[in-house]
Amino acid sequence: MSETRDSRTLPEGPARLSTRDADFNQRLDALLDWESVSSVEVQQRVDEILQGVRSRGDEALLEYTRRFDRLDAPDMTALTLETARLRQAFEGLEQTEREALATAERRIRDYHHRQRSDSWSWRDEDGTLLGQQVTPLDRVGVYVPGGKAAYPSSVLMNVVPARVAGVAEIVMVVPTPDGVINELVLAAAHVAGVDRVVTVGGAQAVAALAYGTESVPRVDKIVGPGNIYVATAKRAVFGLVGIDMIAGPSEILIVSDGGTDPDWLAMDLFSQAEHDEDAQSILISWDRAHLDAVEASMARLLPTMERRDIIAASLGRRGALIEVASEAEAIELANRVAPEHLELSVETPEAMVGQIRHAGAIFMGRYTAEVLGDYCAGPNHVLPTSGSARFSSPLGVQDFQKRSSLIQCSPKGASRLGRVASVLARGESLTAHARSAENRIGEDED
Amino acid sequence: MSETRDSRTLPEGPARLSTRDADFNQRLDALLDWESVSSVEVQQRVDEILQGVRSRGDEALLEYTRRFDRLDAPDMTALTLETARLRQAFEGLEQTEREALATAERRIRDYHHRQRSDSWSWRDEDGTLLGQQVTPLDRVGVYVPGGKAAYPSSVLMNVVPARVAGVAEIVMVVPTPDGVINELVLAAAHVAGVDRVVTVGGAQAVAALAYGTESVPRVDKIVGPGNIYVATAKRAVFGLVGIDMIAGPSEILIVSDGGTDPDWLAMDLFSQAEHDEDAQSILISWDRAHLDAVEASMARLLPTMERRDIIAASLGRRGALIEVASEAEAIELANRVAPEHLELSVETPEAMVGQIRHAGAIFMGRYTAEVLGDYCAGPNHVLPTSGSARFSSPLGVQDFQKRSSLIQCSPKGASRLGRVASVLARGESLTAHARSAENRIGEDED
Repeated sequence: MSETRDSRTLPEGPARLSTRDADFNQRLDALLDWESVSSVEVQQRVDEILQGVRSRGDEALLEYTRRFDRLDAPDMTALTLETARLRQAFEGLEQTEREALATAERRIRDYHHRQRSDSWSWRDEDGTLLGQQVTPLDRVGVYVPGGKAAYPSSVLMNVVPARVAGVAEIVMVVPTPDGVINELVLAAAHVAGVDRVVTVGGAQAVAALAYGTESVPRVDKIVGPGNIYVATAKRAVFGLVGIDMIAGPSEILIVSDGGTDPDWLAMDLFSQAEHDEDAQSILISWDRAHLDAVEASMARLLPTMERRDIIAASLGRRGALIEVASEAEAIELANRVAPEHLELSVETPEAMVGQIRHAGAIFMGRYTAEVLGDYCAGPNHVLPTSGSARFSSPLGVQDFQKRSSLIQCSPKGASRLGRVASVLARGESLTAHARSAENRIGEDED
Repeated sequence: MSETRDSRTLPEGPARLSTRDADFNQRLDALLDWESVSSVEVQQRVDEILQGVRSRGDEALLEYTRRFDRLDAPDMTALTLETARLRQAFEGLEQTEREALATAERRIRDYHHRQRSDSWSWRDEDGTLLGQQVTPLDRVGVYVPGGKAAYPSSVLMNVVPARVAGVAEIVMVVPTPDGVINELVLAAAHVAGVDRVVTVGGAQAVAALAYGTESVPRVDKIVGPGNIYVATAKRAVFGLVGIDMIAGPSEILIVSDGGTDPDWLAMDLFSQAEHDEDAQSILISWDRAHLDAVEASMARLLPTMERRDIIAASLGRRGALIEVASEAEAIELANRVAPEHLELSVETPEAMVGQIRHAGAIFMGRYTAEVLGDYCAGPNHVLPTSGSARFSSPLGVQDFQKRSSLIQCSPKGASRLGRVASVLARGESLTAHARSAENRIGEDED
């Protein structure tokens, strides 16, 4: 977007749209449009860094950390924090913070425990066993951004599901530019149960986790948010290791029946907009006067916000208040947007939720502020963005467990299945397949 | 690899390795090494095709089909097959083939039914509801390769889980170069429950499914195997739509205790090797005489195989017979390789399977030929390759369902959670977050 829009502290505010407008579909599509593209230059720099760490290991890691984080470490030991240091960070916090972290961790753990899959198997009528064996990943790497986007809540949300899944070792990487360490982040790592922290970041940290170095063990999956270099590096190593989704800007879509305090809704919209200037806040209602009231609340409250410049830029660029003809139209629109966060700020959300087909997380009722889900309600705050809730899910224990299919044929089962497989394999002209099956055909049909 | 190796019909056969060899680790790593890289040229051609279909829709689709498949269709109707045509293909088959397809479909459906997730929720001590709502994807695209790699079994394995998940519409694309249609593939589409078939392929088919055209509806996820153009296109549209894994060459690793007929094991290894020259077949045993016997069986049986050239090339290039010191070492090696297919051809596989941490599918006991899983045992044959079983799973119903988190706070719950969220949000300097939470704080602690 243009500089001129960025530099204004108070743009015109969120767009006002109505589904009755002739150009509604076009305007909505333009607002929703988001494509994350890494420039060729970013790609090349990331490729170089990946190659450097892959071939030169710790030496390259130290060199890039010196260059990009202005942190001159003699060796990797100086960049590694053991669990005692994490505990120390936790113990150095105020009691209210320690309690808040512990409460959040406990609730997140309780919720995610219910997502665990167990192995199962059964025997068919021929005595053949069929099933699936569920196992945790061996080792996981969690990326945590440094600087202003260093969120302890993000540490909990990425680490706790891995721990609940039974992952044996969790390595966290977090850049500490100029050596500045965020104690809250380390405290969250302690509470979540991280095994060790390496204070490196960027594409070089992703490379270290994907390929392994002398000091950083190679992991099986890398999760956690990061800037464009981190995202590009994760995409590049995908396949060699697993990765979580590549997140776009954060979004909220609120459906209001007009009965929620406009000041509450204004603040809920602000809470999303304050993330960054590309974040998206949309309110939908069939009550035009209510939309007017929320707009007035936003105008009144904006000057009182510490992050008002970011909020104003985000709302002016990607925010919208949308008038619809009916509740049914609101639901249809929510399904079309497939938002990361969906607030159903209505009297009876139970009647509406079953009609929602696509959303990362659904916040039901006037009391359920989306931010409660960001921190401590229990469900994960790592959610599909940019409409990808059409086909993907919140981060969960499922991301840290995997399945192996199990088959154990009885002689009779092998014989029966062998006859079927033989026909199909010959239909595909795969005769070694057919003969392998035929070897096990016996006297099953007598 | 070099032309000279390819052109020999009988290379030296699979490598013989022993874990006692000084260079064992290096040799094994070299055998396992596989990296799928799209050349810059392929990337550029794919980008062009994607852009063409995105901007010009059906017109581009018809043009690319003319150029790449030598198929001159006047319009998209001529490239669309409705369900009546699929039924006709099924009815035109021999009875044994019809029965084999129906049996396979029934067993695959039965197995996958057990993978379905249900929505759940509970209320905590404050009356706050927490849960997850499980919904199917709206529309899925299934890619089926044309020509010699057109496998009806692959149609069943990709479509049935989507159907079981409750996907409302399944669109299949399959190229028909020179207009040649594979009736078995269409019959499988009928049995599996495909809603319509479009006879286009390559990157242009992926583009049509990802972006939608006038005649091809945009889907939410694209699954199914394809050549390097298809794989490159799938990678490019990932994010806009979901995709399944990008598969590498097929692999089998067999652990034998020496008690299985060497001719059976030879054919099991051949069945993997006959797929293509990059396929990998490995046998591990602690019984050297048994390895010798299997090697002799392979030499004797190879000349009788219809696809002996491919088998010989594959075995010579990537096959191995590995002698280990013990059963424990065999298990360790299997976990290190994390094979797509693992055959435990031993007397008591039940005692071994719990120690297997990484494998796509595990075939237990002498009677369980891997090929039975390819066609009709029930579990999916789309499995993680190239060691990715360390972090990923067989294709399943899970790939066609998604979760939305549910939170519905009671006033008391919102108040309690609001206090925790406020502390954490202020720790992250996100004051709109804090104030949104604080709006819901009431008199919870009295």
